[in-house]
Amino acid sequence: MSETTTAAAGISTADKDQALVNSTMENAHSAFQLYRRMAAKDRALFLETIGKEIDKIREQLVAVAGRETHLPAARLNGEINRTIGQANLFASLIREGSWVEAAIDTEDPGRTPPKPDTRKMLVPVGPVVVFGASNFPFAFSTAGGDTVSALAAGSTVVIKGHSAHAETSGLVFGAIQKAIEASGMPPMTVQHLLGSGRTVGIALVVHPYTTAVGFTGSFAGGKALLEAAQKREVPIPVHAEMSSINPVVFFPDTLEKNAAALAKSYAGSITLGMGQFCTNPGVLLGVKSAALDSFLTLLSAEIAAVEPAKMLHKGICEAYTEGLSSMLGQKGLTIVGQAAKTAGDMEARPVVASVPAAVFLKNPHLSEEVFGPFSLCVICDDRQQLGEVLKSFKGQLTTTIMGTPDDVRGNMDIIDLQQQLAGRVILNNVPTGVEVNASMVHGGPWPATTDGRFTSVGTSAIQRWVRPVCFQNFLDEMLPAEAEECKSAGDLEGG
Amino acid sequence: MSETTTAAAGISTADKDQALVNSTMENAHSAFQLYRRMAAKDRALFLETIGKEIDKIREQLVAVAGRETHLPAARLNGEINRTIGQANLFASLIREGSWVEAAIDTEDPGRTPPKPDTRKMLVPVGPVVVFGASNFPFAFSTAGGDTVSALAAGSTVVIKGHSAHAETSGLVFGAIQKAIEASGMPPMTVQHLLGSGRTVGIALVVHPYTTAVGFTGSFAGGKALLEAAQKREVPIPVHAEMSSINPVVFFPDTLEKNAAALAKSYAGSITLGMGQFCTNPGVLLGVKSAALDSFLTLLSAEIAAVEPAKMLHKGICEAYTEGLSSMLGQKGLTIVGQAAKTAGDMEARPVVASVPAAVFLKNPHLSEEVFGPFSLCVICDDRQQLGEVLKSFKGQLTTTIMGTPDDVRGNMDIIDLQQQLAGRVILNNVPTGVEVNASMVHGGPWPATTDGRFTSVGTSAIQRWVRPVCFQNFLDEMLPAEAEECKSAGDLEGG
Repeated sequence: MSETTTAAAGISTADKDQALVNSTMENAHSAFQLYRRMAAKDRALFLETIGKEIDKIREQLVAVAGRETHLPAARLNGEINRTIGQANLFASLIREGSWVEAAIDTEDPGRTPPKPDTRKMLVPVGPVVVFGASNFPFAFSTAGGDTVSALAAGSTVVIKGHSAHAETSGLVFGAIQKAIEASGMPPMTVQHLLGSGRTVGIALVVHPYTTAVGFTGSFAGGKALLEAAQKREVPIPVHAEMSSINPVVFFPDTLEKNAAALAKSYAGSITLGMGQFCTNPGVLLGVKSAALDSFLTLLSAEIAAVEPAKMLHKGICEAYTEGLSSMLGQKGLTIVGQAAKTAGDMEARPVVASVPAAVFLKNPHLSEEVFGPFSLCVICDDRQQLGEVLKSFKGQLTTTIMGTPDDVRGNMDIIDLQQQLAGRVILNNVPTGVEVNASMVHGGPWPATTDGRFTSVGTSAIQRWVRPVCFQNFLDEMLPAEAEECKSAGDLEGG
Repeated sequence: MSETTTAAAGISTADKDQALVNSTMENAHSAFQLYRRMAAKDRALFLETIGKEIDKIREQLVAVAGRETHLPAARLNGEINRTIGQANLFASLIREGSWVEAAIDTEDPGRTPPKPDTRKMLVPVGPVVVFGASNFPFAFSTAGGDTVSALAAGSTVVIKGHSAHAETSGLVFGAIQKAIEASGMPPMTVQHLLGSGRTVGIALVVHPYTTAVGFTGSFAGGKALLEAAQKREVPIPVHAEMSSINPVVFFPDTLEKNAAALAKSYAGSITLGMGQFCTNPGVLLGVKSAALDSFLTLLSAEIAAVEPAKMLHKGICEAYTEGLSSMLGQKGLTIVGQAAKTAGDMEARPVVASVPAAVFLKNPHLSEEVFGPFSLCVICDDRQQLGEVLKSFKGQLTTTIMGTPDDVRGNMDIIDLQQQLAGRVILNNVPTGVEVNASMVHGGPWPATTDGRFTSVGTSAIQRWVRPVCFQNFLDEMLPAEAEECKSAGDLEGG
């Protein structure tokens, strides 16, 4: 949300911004009246065409995004693959059709009172506003998961591109426009705006024609959008993915047996993409022991060898530097290890610190997210204190269990606490790396997201942009295709 | 929400109320840790036992509720049947099991990077606070749809009983307590409080252990709870069903052919239960014609013959009298018909009025709900104006199309507007009467409810009290039964 307006400040700019937002949302509303009636197979083809048009300009996208975000080409290519894969996944989902959760209860005129024919299915809510995320210029931005899930649902989309990769965003939007034209969709099905989150962004959220919002970014940014949406005459849902420190519990038996491998994989996860992932392991937990000490020594050596690299943009780099400095200034913290090389211009220096659990429990500042390659190891006196630390956490995107089968069997109570904490619970993996499929949950209780009952990754992400409608006693000719009897009755038959 | 505290006012009462709320929510939180682990089949048996215990005291319940609500015995018996039916429906739902929306993606260690095993399912959010509704002392109150859907999900429940039927609520809670004991559930799985909505109610909503709220009542009441929930440090969802005028469109061909039958069924629907239903048809729409005039003349005669009857309680009766008087005082309104008999003590006199659409469109007061046996016929100049009136409506629980097949074919644009307005769209039925099944939607866009993506009636109502969790690389022994491979893999296999 730390952005600057594209035009000079002044009353006329604000008026111009508002006029632009008004005409954009009017277009989105009008286009919705056409787009929502497009056949699922045509919407599916449109999504696949978006992927193809992005692939056509891949080389240019990687070059421009590399310059704008400092992310390496391999990562950007991988992210483009993921973005295309997401569009194709939602195309398959809507072509298959059961995502509409159709349910049919047939009539029984002989019952007292007569039982009507009722058929339920999900329909799109209306125009959706999507905010591009700075840390994923493709997969969580212009043609990212929020956009393609909303388009799959039958909603039109207005994208507020992130100013940190404005040129990349414009190029991706160009690819979407080509796909709109090639697949015969209404011209205003997707629109693209740049500008300040605080002015243009809020104006989009509060516009009467906006029906839902998707956002991935900071807690402050997500909360500001949510509060604006709640103050509307007609409140609307904001799906913001905001803040998570992704606690990882290291159990004793695995620390004894696998310390070197654990140190290697966690040094990698903490510093992957310079820690600029929502699922970065920001807090490591263990009960004090010689094995934990050895693990931390090995982790320290691994971290020391990591090369500092440029962060996404100046604002994020400054926030990391300030956040790290504030964190390291807290009483009771010890630096466990840090990159041997100091950070250059716009670079982040990876750091791991440790703190006794008794100190951690008394200082809420220590459980705040430092977005970047930082992780804090909380050293507990015993299992009971480990449980207390877990209970002290707010909602998380992920939590991880590192343990052997013996560890697991001996700690089901701790694992149970972890299951109540997060949207995804991982055994013997790093939390970074999010699969895109039907079983993924990228979400979690507040403040990980604004509504832990939804996910922003995977096919279930479509559920954010739909509402159910019941059609009672409708004639066959009036029913949407998905609510007609002939469609695979086995799946559709209601209770 | 118009309630009085059960104890005398004063600081000590407020302190006592807060202490009671604290201990209640602590109990609900502790019981949740046990109840959420109960096997689905045991929770199902518990729900069925609630129904059986209610049935055992049916005679007493009908007598007490009749005295408290003035509803006739036949209606109360029907509502008890419905309440038991709802508990049994949710028992069947959780015994069958697919409601958890389990999805499984199996591992592929050979992929680069290796693909993990991920399994998703829905889990309960935690303690739910349910507010009893004055107009349904059984089906939307103590053991009503909100309570049994939350219990089915695995959440514990705290009921804020409605003061207008406090004794009935206590009796039903007694039946639940017997069911808790008989089926070996944790003693505090369900708790029951009385007291003011404004004090005890709000204190329950803002308590840190409360994770979700269910409410059926007035717009002011629902909005107050929602705002309290949004101001929490950790905001929680409030599912409030609040306000709906349920527009009914009468098309020309059916008015020509069926005027007498239409008048009879709509006089019945408008005055059913003295209009005290959320789905009461509060506004009737048609294009001016001789047939519409004839229909209104017939409707007037039907309404004249209706006997005024006692409303649920004094507050509702006063609100109807005031709302009706304010409505009839608006410029341009004409009384079409009213009950021949005037209203006695606590009785409501049914009234139907009419207004030209041009007047209706200019006066937002005319589209406000008057809870009771009142309906306003909006007479449009032509089809275009009918569309404008439909576009002017806020979100609704229902909207109804009264029309012959010819009417339908000639008015698909109007019907399309109706489909965007409400959670349930009805052809040639009255909106009163809500089936309880898999295809029902009792919900709708704001202000019909706080979140139009959910329903409070039917099996999908369970979706309000759950969130998805993804288990990554879990050992079989760690997985909940529903996420194990052996369970009907056909249903569970993910994308």
